[in-house]
Amino acid sequence: MQLEEIGEFGFIKSFAKKFDKLIPPGGHGIGDDCAIIPISENRDMVISSDMLVEDVHFIKEKSSPEDLGYKSLAVNLSDIAAMGAKPTSSFLSFAIPRTFTTEYLDKFIEGYYNLSEKFNIPLMGGDTTSSPDKFVINITVTGVIDKGKAKLRSMAQEGDIIAVTDFLGDSAAGLHAILHSNDKNSKHLINRHNRPEPYLMQSQWLCEQPGVNAMMDISDGIGSDINHILNSSNKGAVIKTEQIPISSHLKEYCKQYKTDPLEFAISGGEDYSLLLTANENSFKQIAKEYNRNFKTTLFPIGKITSKNEPVWTLNNKAIKKESGGFNHFFDSKICR
Amino acid sequence: MQLEEIGEFGFIKSFAKKFDKLIPPGGHGIGDDCAIIPISENRDMVISSDMLVEDVHFIKEKSSPEDLGYKSLAVNLSDIAAMGAKPTSSFLSFAIPRTFTTEYLDKFIEGYYNLSEKFNIPLMGGDTTSSPDKFVINITVTGVIDKGKAKLRSMAQEGDIIAVTDFLGDSAAGLHAILHSNDKNSKHLINRHNRPEPYLMQSQWLCEQPGVNAMMDISDGIGSDINHILNSSNKGAVIKTEQIPISSHLKEYCKQYKTDPLEFAISGGEDYSLLLTANENSFKQIAKEYNRNFKTTLFPIGKITSKNEPVWTLNNKAIKKESGGFNHFFDSKICR
Repeated sequence: MQLEEIGEFGFIKSFAKKFDKLIPPGGHGIGDDCAIIPISENRDMVISSDMLVEDVHFIKEKSSPEDLGYKSLAVNLSDIAAMGAKPTSSFLSFAIPRTFTTEYLDKFIEGYYNLSEKFNIPLMGGDTTSSPDKFVINITVTGVIDKGKAKLRSMAQEGDIIAVTDFLGDSAAGLHAILHSNDKNSKHLINRHNRPEPYLMQSQWLCEQPGVNAMMDISDGIGSDINHILNSSNKGAVIKTEQIPISSHLKEYCKQYKTDPLEFAISGGEDYSLLLTANENSFKQIAKEYNRNFKTTLFPIGKITSKNEPVWTLNNKAIKKESGGFNHFFDSKICR
Repeated sequence: MQLEEIGEFGFIKSFAKKFDKLIPPGGHGIGDDCAIIPISENRDMVISSDMLVEDVHFIKEKSSPEDLGYKSLAVNLSDIAAMGAKPTSSFLSFAIPRTFTTEYLDKFIEGYYNLSEKFNIPLMGGDTTSSPDKFVINITVTGVIDKGKAKLRSMAQEGDIIAVTDFLGDSAAGLHAILHSNDKNSKHLINRHNRPEPYLMQSQWLCEQPGVNAMMDISDGIGSDINHILNSSNKGAVIKTEQIPISSHLKEYCKQYKTDPLEFAISGGEDYSLLLTANENSFKQIAKEYNRNFKTTLFPIGKITSKNEPVWTLNNKAIKKESGGFNHFFDSKICR
């Protein structure tokens, strides 16, 4: 059977169960943004490892080495944020084509270093090897969190408000602009694609709020990623598409190119916004304090229900959502 | 400047220092087989991350998927062994060409699982993505060790006996046989190349012995790897080449192909034997107990000196060592 037939998640599922029995008590393996390893009486470690491949996740000519270095680390830190943990170290492996110059790599490291320094996260190891063809980057990040406090995808409760921490779709439109237009008006969107901000402070704060239940980051697009929470929690949802936060930049871009902003916002991917569910009664207060602390909005976009699949509505009427998110074996936006 | 001009280690050195100031007290970053992260009052975590690239580290057609899965994990566990730590988890990322079948990947996972189960090490996460070209594997492993007990490359003392835990060169001859002869008599050597045994139990025991000072694993060949200990410890060495342990299988193979076993043993690489230095006065007793516990030999091959470079001798006469070890940007044995 070809791998495409079962897809990325089907393949992972096929072997994840096998290893479950080796996981120690208090540990948590494949299925969330990070794994959880108990390290002491009061603390857990969280770990995530992600691979980025040239012409699948990025096109070398279309982004600067500084941006690529920054973003490679940022998307990994976003996984630490998704658990509500504090990052403690990173490990960088790369397979480098022989044609690369040290100048290019120095700039890559500069971008990587700038973000490391900002959050005080040491690069502590990794691997460097040659590549016969593509530039391949693998980053592993570690973090710590009080024992049992990590937010899992399986923790959503019926009645929870579903919320996101940022406008959705900007990054996908930024990629669209990089590939198709690259006009000056898209600078903001392109920057949102190249320099995603990991929600580290926000997620650690959210993790402290008793009303917050499930949490993850949006990497493949909310249209696909919401299903991870719903499947893990065995719940359904109503998503009010008119409440999905769309930036004025995205609206402007879509007007110009006669495309639907919701298409980017739902199926685009690489937002790296947090996606969380919080108790209905606590949400208002949490959103208010969040706004006071971080001078930015926690956007409610729907509700967790008992039904076992998401329903997308527009002004309270169910609508059909055609497209899914980014699946690395099906609809890779870049390499097909 | 082309990367080849400064090489793998030159490039790593160029940025490692930059991150040093971000490393927390008690932590240890780039430069040993694993990084060390303090996790509690009495324990440290060790972490290593390694990348394996098709046609650089392996040729798909020349090894079975089970062997490749097994070996990918084994070489990483060898890094945990090098510190004297106990492995606790692994993370597997791979970039998979679209032509791969699920049957191939199931077999890869089977080999990976067999070794995981043997040492009770859960696979707890990772990443799966498509690759436009080569099969790329990245594995991160974690381990634990009592605080401050990890064995570093910098710990060699003048007068220490240098020792290895296994015959050297078998794996390199196995690779030679895979690429050039593949006759039935090389089965043992090929197996040594495809299924290296990580010295986990042995290294944890060695780590407990007060006389053992520096430790690492031999991955690039002792001719190159000994320099890591000497440079880090700011010492020299005398290596008695006639004491380097050569298996009867390697002798037989070299007789047939009119090659020098020492060439494989010194410059071959992928031995994954432990390389350690131990106090001169304790060594005899350590070697005796090691032999009693593990029914195998700790081979002394030389001595740490104050001089700042290794001297290779044959029957007490200095000889010239022409070739170095495996450097991924210069003399990749497979892909050139």
